[in-house]
Amino acid sequence: MDFQKELRLKQKLVNQRLEKIIDENDAPVRIVEAMKYSLLAGGKRIRPILSISICQALGGKIDDVLDFACAIEFIHTYSLIHDDLPAMDNDDLRRGKPTNHVVFGEAMAILAGDGLLNYAFEIMLKEAVDKNKFFYLKAADIVAKAAGIKGMIGGQVIDLESEGKKIDIDTLNKMHRKKTGALIEASCLCGCIIAQKEDMTEAVKEYGKNLGIAFQIVDDILDYVGDPKKLGKNTGIDIKNNKSTYVSILGIEKSKKLAEEYSLNARNNAKTIDKSGFLLNLTDYLLNRES
Amino acid sequence: MDFQKELRLKQKLVNQRLEKIIDENDAPVRIVEAMKYSLLAGGKRIRPILSISICQALGGKIDDVLDFACAIEFIHTYSLIHDDLPAMDNDDLRRGKPTNHVVFGEAMAILAGDGLLNYAFEIMLKEAVDKNKFFYLKAADIVAKAAGIKGMIGGQVIDLESEGKKIDIDTLNKMHRKKTGALIEASCLCGCIIAQKEDMTEAVKEYGKNLGIAFQIVDDILDYVGDPKKLGKNTGIDIKNNKSTYVSILGIEKSKKLAEEYSLNARNNAKTIDKSGFLLNLTDYLLNRES
Repeated sequence: MDFQKELRLKQKLVNQRLEKIIDENDAPVRIVEAMKYSLLAGGKRIRPILSISICQALGGKIDDVLDFACAIEFIHTYSLIHDDLPAMDNDDLRRGKPTNHVVFGEAMAILAGDGLLNYAFEIMLKEAVDKNKFFYLKAADIVAKAAGIKGMIGGQVIDLESEGKKIDIDTLNKMHRKKTGALIEASCLCGCIIAQKEDMTEAVKEYGKNLGIAFQIVDDILDYVGDPKKLGKNTGIDIKNNKSTYVSILGIEKSKKLAEEYSLNARNNAKTIDKSGFLLNLTDYLLNRES
Repeated sequence: MDFQKELRLKQKLVNQRLEKIIDENDAPVRIVEAMKYSLLAGGKRIRPILSISICQALGGKIDDVLDFACAIEFIHTYSLIHDDLPAMDNDDLRRGKPTNHVVFGEAMAILAGDGLLNYAFEIMLKEAVDKNKFFYLKAADIVAKAAGIKGMIGGQVIDLESEGKKIDIDTLNKMHRKKTGALIEASCLCGCIIAQKEDMTEAVKEYGKNLGIAFQIVDDILDYVGDPKKLGKNTGIDIKNNKSTYVSILGIEKSKKLAEEYSLNARNNAKTIDKSGFLLNLTDYLLNRES
């Protein structure tokens, strides 16, 4: 099977499962609408597809990892909703559509974010209770840490505190390792843990780390040179918000070179983890993207 | 030992443990400050003390339930921070102190709330992983559901949608059962589950339900007739925000009578659960309070 076809199949699978999970509840209609709006607004489903692909590559079953993978996408989506809020980045466009608070109002957007984060843990705990396997608990523990103040939220805080300031490359690295890197790494690790291949933990961790950094540098480059139409969001946001990026600190050429270095590392890790070639193709797809 | 002394001891224990848990991390300083500010701003610690007292009454050990009880207080605290935000209730005073966003700014308050919610799950999952007992997983599952869109957040949504509207008593009951009742009930149930007294589940559930409703009616009464100095927060907020309350729907006399009915039920449940009398005293303390 060719890579693009397999990727689309996986994305479809994730999208269908996300919708099914969110529809399986009797919560107030309006918040479910708000959550669904952002959850099903498209997106590449990078994190769940990483979990699934790595789990499969290491001999695990898709049914064992799918709900967990979706839970991570719930967390990613909540972080985008809260990040876009007027008090935060104040962004009105995301994936080519008005942001959550523009459509549902600020109060509902805050609650929809809270709801998605909480629901992610409901999903993971349900899996752990239903299947009663210790490794689900371990996987949930890793996701929780990656999403929290030592991980993603901590990265947001560094981001917030760096606004309007010149920061050095070490601080920028730290910020991104937490803000984007931690959850990407956790997505990869979950795949490994659920496949019960403990001996691959280090390789998968390395892959997640390299991919996360490369991904972020590419993101910064796209914000600088990308096409808003292809990206489905405004560009130049970082400059407008006076944010330090790889491009603003290192310049465009050095940023491209650094992205290449980390990409090369990630490619090598991918080859170790997945003999089928899918993860390698996925890595190239994520790091050579235009949106 | 007299009740007041025992209560203060339990509150001190919870406060010390809350502080220790929040200090045990290397997250960015400013968000830890913001989280601590609200977490340690006082408060009666109702939810953790319910978990602890019920666990002890049913033969469980305090060390087995303490961190779990604290996790629930993290969730309660996050809900207050987000509830106070300008886009939500826009309240500037809580427990006699400026609210979180007044001190730390709106962006940090949103992140501090997110951080507290996430941290609650980190605590519960750590307990479940470290102690590797299935009942922790079950307890975490119950807390997650109670805190989510089918529980507390769902109640917030009904609250938000009811603003400026006349709602009936059924909607008000439903709102409060979710908004305050669900987490109080879950706090009680956790104590029971961690004590591993499954046969007491129904009695504990009933207790939590009755206590939760009575507690909310008393809250509405205090907002109407209470002393802002004793309460440490502004009164008349519900009227100002044009919110339906038990008092606005039923009137003050009927509200008092209803509170008494549910209090009586809760007292009877308390006697069944705890022969020592502590839970009965706690129930009276919570329902006859002036703040």
